[in-house]
Amino acid sequence: MADEAPFQFLHNELIQYIYKSAENETENGRNLTKLENIGFRVGQGLIERLTKDTARFKDELDVMKFICKDFWTCVFKKQIDNLRTNHQGIYVLQDNKFRLLGQLSAGKQYLEQAPKYLAFTCGLVRGALSNLGVKSIVTSEVSVMPACKFQVMIQKL
Amino acid sequence: MADEAPFQFLHNELIQYIYKSAENETENGRNLTKLENIGFRVGQGLIERLTKDTARFKDELDVMKFICKDFWTCVFKKQIDNLRTNHQGIYVLQDNKFRLLGQLSAGKQYLEQAPKYLAFTCGLVRGALSNLGVKSIVTSEVSVMPACKFQVMIQKL
Repeated sequence: MADEAPFQFLHNELIQYIYKSAENETENGRNLTKLENIGFRVGQGLIERLTKDTARFKDELDVMKFICKDFWTCVFKKQIDNLRTNHQGIYVLQDNKFRLLGQLSAGKQYLEQAPKYLAFTCGLVRGALSNLGVKSIVTSEVSVMPACKFQVMIQKL
Repeated sequence: MADEAPFQFLHNELIQYIYKSAENETENGRNLTKLENIGFRVGQGLIERLTKDTARFKDELDVMKFICKDFWTCVFKKQIDNLRTNHQGIYVLQDNKFRLLGQLSAGKQYLEQAPKYLAFTCGLVRGALSNLGVKSIVTSEVSVMPACKFQVMIQKL
């Protein structure tokens, strides 16, 4: 019965609301930042609950694996399909069928709409990592919908 | 692993966002209306998906039972605890442990905060009913958290 549907629909309406209420602003970027910030706080809250009874993480890679498996499954009901790293602080998380893009047509027609469906999730990952003590910059990339990649750049302190 | 957590956290942040972005407005009512409207559209979308393969509803009571069981379970992972009606178009749905109030302390201290945690759900029910052809007014009431009641008044056409 589509467990993740309420979350998806709420996410969609949040986007509509933010874009509608800022109709007069020419800056698309500000809306993306708002979505990213909301995602950040949701990510912080979620990871706190999810890691309540988890053993301590061994290292950065261990943290990333937790994000790709447990965290992703909690939010999107599937795991990340592919995790790559250059072992120097850059991680690429690939989701071949990203749920929040699922309602958009797969063609190139709506490709320019994709960033606003990904901003929240960039924040989500950044917030989760932040609460695990890992400061990062998270960006997203879509070439063929509904697949997408999230690039995580760890900020060394 | 708390299936409904992403939805709950997103709902909380939506409230924060709407109340924060309207700091200068003295009117609390406008924010409640915004939340209610967002809930309305989420309700419309959800019920459409949930009733995709459902048999035709017999009558109004049949519709209300679907809202109390299937719809409520989809969104809040539990059923409504008690459904009452005066058989003249008024229905009272009681949830003894309403999820979206779960993070508020159960005392009376935060009772005045309750309406903003219920507005979205009032809209959710109104939107779902609306897409099933039932026009209604939905209000909420809390006496002891986290229990609450939703009153549905059917608008005869």
